[in-house]
Amino acid sequence: MSDDTATELLAATYRALCRHGYADLTLADVADEADRSKAAIHYDDDGETLFVEFLDVLYERDTARLPSVDGGTPREQLSALLAAVLIDEGAAPDQRFRTALLAVSVQAPYDDAVQTRLSNFDAVLYERLRAIVAAGVESGEFDATVEAAVAAEFPVTAITGAHTRRVAVKRSSETLSEALTWYIDRQLLADGAPEAAH
Amino acid sequence: MSDDTATELLAATYRALCRHGYADLTLADVADEADRSKAAIHYDDDGETLFVEFLDVLYERDTARLPSVDGGTPREQLSALLAAVLIDEGAAPDQRFRTALLAVSVQAPYDDAVQTRLSNFDAVLYERLRAIVAAGVESGEFDATVEAAVAAEFPVTAITGAHTRRVAVKRSSETLSEALTWYIDRQLLADGAPEAAH
Repeated sequence: MSDDTATELLAATYRALCRHGYADLTLADVADEADRSKAAIHYDDDGETLFVEFLDVLYERDTARLPSVDGGTPREQLSALLAAVLIDEGAAPDQRFRTALLAVSVQAPYDDAVQTRLSNFDAVLYERLRAIVAAGVESGEFDATVEAAVAAEFPVTAITGAHTRRVAVKRSSETLSEALTWYIDRQLLADGAPEAAH
Repeated sequence: MSDDTATELLAATYRALCRHGYADLTLADVADEADRSKAAIHYDDDGETLFVEFLDVLYERDTARLPSVDGGTPREQLSALLAAVLIDEGAAPDQRFRTALLAVSVQAPYDDAVQTRLSNFDAVLYERLRAIVAAGVESGEFDATVEAAVAAEFPVTAITGAHTRRVAVKRSSETLSEALTWYIDRQLLADGAPEAAH
């Protein structure tokens, strides 16, 4: 499909998910949001296919965004990346969108195509964090004893947990953001490196 | 209800959730697992009520277990508690149970009773971790600059994320466990305190 069609479908699916939630969403709802007939959307009449396609578009959009945190030192890149993936607080449409994505996650054990897409998201974020930490160790900004593969696992898992807690218990990510800054400064930074201004 | 009845219901609900998953579960399935008639289970004929009751029993059982990590230094208590809540790897019934609990989490924004129960779980784990960290700071085992409220937020969020990632992307908690040990040793321990043997 063309980029324009993909973008239009993404926007329509996003709006429909926010309005109806995952459980009640129909292809007709997406078509309503897209302001064109259901027949004009070239997908199987099968919710799962639509969601896999939706995850693919979301993946392209989000991974295209990640490089925008380039520039600066590894510590600055890390802070910018973590802030970007946690900057989802407060807005009600986003809360509904997070709920819908969590509902998609529940389908993963029963749908290989969904699990593969979610695994790709997870792997891209993890690899990006790991690479930044490794670059920091290489440049000497981060402590030489830091193992990038282990150091990246904690934030990736916490980010996933922050999204789940936001849905399940309405927990804000504010304290977690503070904890992540503290983690970077105390756990990763080489002794003697100046701490970031807070 | 009596403790025996609660335990029996919990076991039956657990087995039924593992067998059928959340979405397809009916009260009759639970009754089948409990090996008694549906009528003998004194609940409304309403799935939600059953799940709220189920969460209540689960809450009592799990919070009763938490004090069993008492004894030892705060660092040892922290390691034992984190190991206990992450010791859910590998077993397929547990994987299905985690999926069912995640499905319950998706219901939280639409069901105050469910959200309240999940919030209680979250708060108990958080408060337990916070208290252990605070005791470690008090005793001098942990660094005096550690803020217990911030230090506890990271593990609680990561534990939630580990449960979600296990369902969504089949990620094992092995590397996270390693990261948590490293977090305790480097981030929390006072300078000069001996590191735990790994």
